[in-house]
Amino acid sequence: MPRHIAIIPDGNRRWALARGLEKHDGYKNGIIPGLEVYDICMKIGIDEVTFFGFTQDNTKRPKVQKKAFADACIKSVQEIAKRDAEILVVGNTNSDLFPKELLAYTKKTKVGQGKIKINFLINYGWYWDLTYAFDNSDKEKMVENIASADISRIDLLIRWGGRRRLSGMLPIQTVYSDIYVVDEMWPDFKPEHMYSALDFYQDQDITLGG
Amino acid sequence: MPRHIAIIPDGNRRWALARGLEKHDGYKNGIIPGLEVYDICMKIGIDEVTFFGFTQDNTKRPKVQKKAFADACIKSVQEIAKRDAEILVVGNTNSDLFPKELLAYTKKTKVGQGKIKINFLINYGWYWDLTYAFDNSDKEKMVENIASADISRIDLLIRWGGRRRLSGMLPIQTVYSDIYVVDEMWPDFKPEHMYSALDFYQDQDITLGG
Repeated sequence: MPRHIAIIPDGNRRWALARGLEKHDGYKNGIIPGLEVYDICMKIGIDEVTFFGFTQDNTKRPKVQKKAFADACIKSVQEIAKRDAEILVVGNTNSDLFPKELLAYTKKTKVGQGKIKINFLINYGWYWDLTYAFDNSDKEKMVENIASADISRIDLLIRWGGRRRLSGMLPIQTVYSDIYVVDEMWPDFKPEHMYSALDFYQDQDITLGG
Repeated sequence: MPRHIAIIPDGNRRWALARGLEKHDGYKNGIIPGLEVYDICMKIGIDEVTFFGFTQDNTKRPKVQKKAFADACIKSVQEIAKRDAEILVVGNTNSDLFPKELLAYTKKTKVGQGKIKINFLINYGWYWDLTYAFDNSDKEKMVENIASADISRIDLLIRWGGRRRLSGMLPIQTVYSDIYVVDEMWPDFKPEHMYSALDFYQDQDITLGG
């Protein structure tokens, strides 16, 4: 069983286009799937889950899309905050693109019984993450001082939407992650996707290069 | 067409076991496939190819295996050195595990007409790579000063042997790489694998998050 699962909820815009909607209409259909992932992970006893919210690279998109994905992220965090979790939001807060509604969660926040760690990457950037260590530390232990240092190594990364790439998600925590790709778009999430990914993980040899 | 292709030649030990050989016997069967990749990339005009030789994590393996994969790496570099290439070996040379035969190639070395950049990761470590910037630079441009700074961003990463992970290969250069997995083991390399990977790459949208 993986200790830490990462989720890349991709394909919201392609899902919307395929239904004759506008691209930005996809994002709000990605909120419920995230809560379903949360429910499954709580049920089977996963220790930590990290959601790819949005990155600084994503903020190059049109304004209407930026508002739509930021709103979906805010809503997702607020919904988790009504449940049991230890919530942590990681991202560059020195920017108007960071939603102020989520500032409180950039410090670990226990809600309910705090049984599961739930991290969200919000206005996250891999370059910002790694250079943070240089900017914020006089220690030589650069890797231990990255901006996302409170997020642990990822065992299983699941990406929806068929793309086979990391898109800048946590380069240090993903060095040995096993990557499982779901071809369906994120708003078409089904619990079977999670169970298939967990089955895949059972067949991997976790050697970390040894 | 990808500008820069990375190759993870995995599955040498599983290939050997499946034939009733000892694990370490697999590696020497991985030399010719590397030269076939080189020939294909030269023919179709790829600009840069990076081969995953071995990492510091791999050096936790038994001595007989370490000698076998180091020997295969040495031979591979020496064979490329008889052809046309700009060769660069990147890895931690402050260790007995770095083959001294390859020291000369840790500076870019043009052989023949030097038409294609061929990089080899030899005793490479992602942690070493990233912290090198901290140790060797007083500039704040940490990412620009990593040990592998002369290796460019990777467009297409092809891994043989069925595993779906990066195994610590160049975390900064792979942030947006499209990953193609070949289920066959590396010693069973066929040119069709490369052509299938190139076909896959044609279908990707290279947005870099935008």
